[in-house]
Amino acid sequence: MPRTIIGVMGGGDVHPDVERDAFRLGELIADRGWVLLNGGRDAGVMAASAAGAHRKGGLVVGVLPGTDRHDMSPDVDIPILTGMGSARNNINVLSSDVVIACAGGAGTISEVALALKAGRSVVVLNFDALQSIFPESAGIQYVTTPDAAITAMEELLSRRKDAKGTKKS
Amino acid sequence: MPRTIIGVMGGGDVHPDVERDAFRLGELIADRGWVLLNGGRDAGVMAASAAGAHRKGGLVVGVLPGTDRHDMSPDVDIPILTGMGSARNNINVLSSDVVIACAGGAGTISEVALALKAGRSVVVLNFDALQSIFPESAGIQYVTTPDAAITAMEELLSRRKDAKGTKKS
Amino acid sequence: MPRTIIGVMGGGDVHPDVERDAFRLGELIADRGWVLLNGGRDAGVMAASAAGAHRKGGLVVGVLPGTDRHDMSPDVDIPILTGMGSARNNINVLSSDVVIACAGGAGTISEVALALKAGRSVVVLNFDALQSIFPESAGIQYVTTPDAAITAMEELLSRRKDAKGTKKS
Amino acid sequence: MPRTIIGVMGGGDVHPDVERDAFRLGELIADRGWVLLNGGRDAGVMAASAAGAHRKGGLVVGVLPGTDRHDMSPDVDIPILTGMGSARNNINVLSSDVVIACAGGAGTISEVALALKAGRSVVVLNFDALQSIFPESAGIQYVTTPDAAITAMEELLSRRKDAKGTKKS
Repeated sequence: MPRTIIGVMGGGDVHPDVERDAFRLGELIADRGWVLLNGGRDAGVMAASAAGAHRKGGLVVGVLPGTDRHDMSPDVDIPILTGMGSARNNINVLSSDVVIACAGGAGTISEVALALKAGRSVVVLNFDALQSIFPESAGIQYVTTPDAAITAMEELLSRRKDAKGTKKS
Repeated sequence: MPRTIIGVMGGGDVHPDVERDAFRLGELIADRGWVLLNGGRDAGVMAASAAGAHRKGGLVVGVLPGTDRHDMSPDVDIPILTGMGSARNNINVLSSDVVIACAGGAGTISEVALALKAGRSVVVLNFDALQSIFPESAGIQYVTTPDAAITAMEELLSRRKDAKGTKKS
Repeated sequence: MPRTIIGVMGGGDVHPDVERDAFRLGELIADRGWVLLNGGRDAGVMAASAAGAHRKGGLVVGVLPGTDRHDMSPDVDIPILTGMGSARNNINVLSSDVVIACAGGAGTISEVALALKAGRSVVVLNFDALQSIFPESAGIQYVTTPDAAITAMEELLSRRKDAKGTKKS
Repeated sequence: MPRTIIGVMGGGDVHPDVERDAFRLGELIADRGWVLLNGGRDAGVMAASAAGAHRKGGLVVGVLPGTDRHDMSPDVDIPILTGMGSARNNINVLSSDVVIACAGGAGTISEVALALKAGRSVVVLNFDALQSIFPESAGIQYVTTPDAAITAMEELLSRRKDAKGTKKS
């Protein structure tokens, strides 16, 4: 059985409040035994969420844009070197059981869009500007605290498990 | 000297008005001797813009998500088969001198986001919902007719040429 | 109907004889009205085949590893900027109706391997070392002159057309 | 500090002896606390090496060609879904500290070629046909047992560590 993978997206240059939320998210993800996957760079939401997961002994996969470990967060355990720049954003979302999007810029918006396009469920944490283009629906929900994000993810994951169970029977 | 390449993005399933605008855009792009690049599928803005360009004898490059020509618009001259699904959206915008975005869904939004991330100029034609997340700026402008889109592109291209001329002198 | 696309692969740093063959190949490809596709860089087989095609008024598509036109051959008409390094080799072969491989190094060998993996026909021009790992077969044949390469390609293309014709009838 | 990642490449349809070697390699890699990375499919060298690593409690990263977990080896812990077919071969080798190649077909040959192109060290286990195109050198060595492959990898990894130590001092 593969591990549950939670993709944490978000900007490389963000307000300290956003980094604090990302750090807390990382802690909560590790507490549940989930793997944290992000863009791997040593900046913003990527660095903060990886550090949070590490503080709780979690495993961090960093899907990097470059061909080497330059500019990688020190809290990445498994660096995936894609060498394909922003096209790696699609790999980030495809590889995630659930995607959580913290605040960010164009890169983060591209990841939310690609996740929805690929049919991945998205939980948005304090990035309400997205609601005007991605209104709340079965595929995307909006929350305001890391704890609410975790609750939303748990429900999404248990629904997936139910769906699989139903198929088998 | 490479040809000028205009990327036309937009949804695969859109209102007939959007397709009509895309067809007209294709005509105007071909009239100016520019190459039209799009996602190559036989649907919506892709099919309509390719058909418009072809009607005026233009050249159409289709950057396809799959590994064969299945579901390709009949008006694509040069199929680029990427076999990488939505990750090809990044190639679409990187390869375009200017990106024009017609209305669409998550795929189109990902392309606008990736274009801005990569520093490509974007002209948005009648897809005003984007303004809430991508406010008008040096990198992105909003227009309401195909003719206005062409005027905006001409200005962007001439500014680029000036910049290059300045560098050389 | 899309144009016929011939992919010309080969090293960036090769013997002048190899460049001479690549230039001649470019001429012959353009003479037949085919589009020449290669890796787009201003070096070796890429630069020489593009120059040959241009001399005869042909159209050249360059599928580049980077995100800008830096180090692009001046004879590329349509630059496709992938930003994905050597992973773009797979796009080169997928997009080609037939692949022709001139002598080269690891990059060229990867392209021949990816072409065979993807079911594309390969014609090898004076790169006999490949025979030990890719013995002559239905998928790959070995020739010693640009003219023989063109003859082999014409036969492969006409067989494909027949196969399509048969399907329809 | 990121974990040491050993990429194990090899065919999906191979002789039972090759699978037995791959299984043993997986065991030895896990014994040393290294992460095993492969192409993730439920076939040949991929399935066998993952099973071997799992038997010893190792961690397995599978970099898959598709967009879902269909046809994934049951011994993959961390599925990376690329959705980019054989272009993912470049990610496999970029992400590996050392690449070990067991016998295989065109896909495996493309991975060895891409690894050498990217400057990754390759150890080849019982796939001697490669010697005619990739002669033994600083970048590639040939061995005949899983134990010899491990010894070669240990030396390569310790040399890398020395090189880094030297840089810092």
